[in-house]
Amino acid sequence: MLRPLVAALGLASLASCAPPSPPPSSSGRPSAPADADRITQASVINALMIGRYDGVTTIGAMLRLGDFGLGTLDHLDGELIILDGRAYQVRGDGAVLDVGPEQTTPFAVVTPFDADGEFACPAAASLTELEAKLDEAFPQRNAFVAVRIDGRLKSAVLRSVHRQEPPYRPLAEVAESQSMWTREDLAGTLLGVRSPAWTTGLTVPGYHWHFLSDDRKVGGHVLDCRPESGRVRYDVARDWDVQLPDSPDFDRADLTPDLSRELHKVESSRGPAPAAAAPGR
Amino acid sequence: MLRPLVAALGLASLASCAPPSPPPSSSGRPSAPADADRITQASVINALMIGRYDGVTTIGAMLRLGDFGLGTLDHLDGELIILDGRAYQVRGDGAVLDVGPEQTTPFAVVTPFDADGEFACPAAASLTELEAKLDEAFPQRNAFVAVRIDGRLKSAVLRSVHRQEPPYRPLAEVAESQSMWTREDLAGTLLGVRSPAWTTGLTVPGYHWHFLSDDRKVGGHVLDCRPESGRVRYDVARDWDVQLPDSPDFDRADLTPDLSRELHKVESSRGPAPAAAAPGR
Repeated sequence: MLRPLVAALGLASLASCAPPSPPPSSSGRPSAPADADRITQASVINALMIGRYDGVTTIGAMLRLGDFGLGTLDHLDGELIILDGRAYQVRGDGAVLDVGPEQTTPFAVVTPFDADGEFACPAAASLTELEAKLDEAFPQRNAFVAVRIDGRLKSAVLRSVHRQEPPYRPLAEVAESQSMWTREDLAGTLLGVRSPAWTTGLTVPGYHWHFLSDDRKVGGHVLDCRPESGRVRYDVARDWDVQLPDSPDFDRADLTPDLSRELHKVESSRGPAPAAAAPGR
Repeated sequence: MLRPLVAALGLASLASCAPPSPPPSSSGRPSAPADADRITQASVINALMIGRYDGVTTIGAMLRLGDFGLGTLDHLDGELIILDGRAYQVRGDGAVLDVGPEQTTPFAVVTPFDADGEFACPAAASLTELEAKLDEAFPQRNAFVAVRIDGRLKSAVLRSVHRQEPPYRPLAEVAESQSMWTREDLAGTLLGVRSPAWTTGLTVPGYHWHFLSDDRKVGGHVLDCRPESGRVRYDVARDWDVQLPDSPDFDRADLTPDLSRELHKVESSRGPAPAAAAPGR
């Protein structure tokens, strides 16, 4: 959100120094709450990478910190989607389920979504092409950008992961057995978070996309898609809150290795051979 | 702070999930405020490393987020110390001045200091030895630990930096002209923050120490010291809040280079030859 007064004073502002009552966003939604520019994450991505899949906080706690977000569930039991204040789980078998506030997550990112702007979604032949076009609209490369695209997709390659049991294996190994399916002609919401490149090891640098269909029957982590039409709304966040688990197990973990190559593989790999439809559905 | 109930439930807790009224700390201080386990920083250290020395937020804003902390001032004008809710500047000439709430900082770290525990300060022949002993007391290597040591130092090697004017040079270059002085028999407070190793590029990994004498006449960034006696109090923080400047200049900056070697040099180098007393004093 622009802060012309602060800019006129020649002082770059921090999120926390924003005026208490920012103007309504261009989407016409009501004014943002006090921490609207905050994006909060539970744990750090490297903990997930090395197999820390036990929930460290509740979905209810995350919902109090934002109505929009993504992540995974306790025991790595599928993909987590938080949209309009409701939480959904996309299980490894493709089923989309409601998530109760008492369920837990080992890693999630949430923000109170209050659009800073919106524009028509450009058509794109791939997720890579979409991201390149969005990058032109979001020059704030050292801020976080939450993006929601409500519209139609010609197709999407989605994946989810299967519930794991201890002793946990690293995510790069587990992801090799992910479920993956391609669906065509979807109406729904792409939920994305773009994080600065310097967040390596802590969250997913660059874009991270989940999808949920309007009928709440199809969803998952997005490996690729062909957006056809829709509306892009975005919310820039400059207050990044990392909540670290309070456990000896977390404290003992070595979170310093550079696992960015493995993460990229996990987040974008299409694996051996995509199925034509959601498995088991 | 221990959370036996949460632990008994078998669920690792996050800072934000703490019970609303934690028990009094072992120091006997009153209960912590709601965000007592939060540690907040303005900007990221790599922005300072590449010469972003213009203030991005006010000292007043930082004081609202914590009564304990360290950093630097607008234009890299010396070392910033926040102790018991008051802000001090140690200029490059060694002078210790009060800092007004309207002054600004390009990089600072603050927390509401509410001791989780305390113990007698071990004598040590060097800062390295002190840190090794403290590490034994703080096994939480993936949490942040604020440390204050009120006591006596046999000696301390202190430094400060000189106010810079644009166009700014990188911090590693500027630090070569730092002021440095050795003082003996000091009574005062060592203020330290230990950050996890995986915070590279974002804050100072490991320990970062500033010092302020009881008579508020001597202070600075601590390059070395020989603690003699005193009391260590520490405050573990698991909610790490990074507030990013809202400016095109910040957004354009490439903050991804690994400058950890340069940072280590800046933070711990004793430079060419220490002076026997504060220059110009």
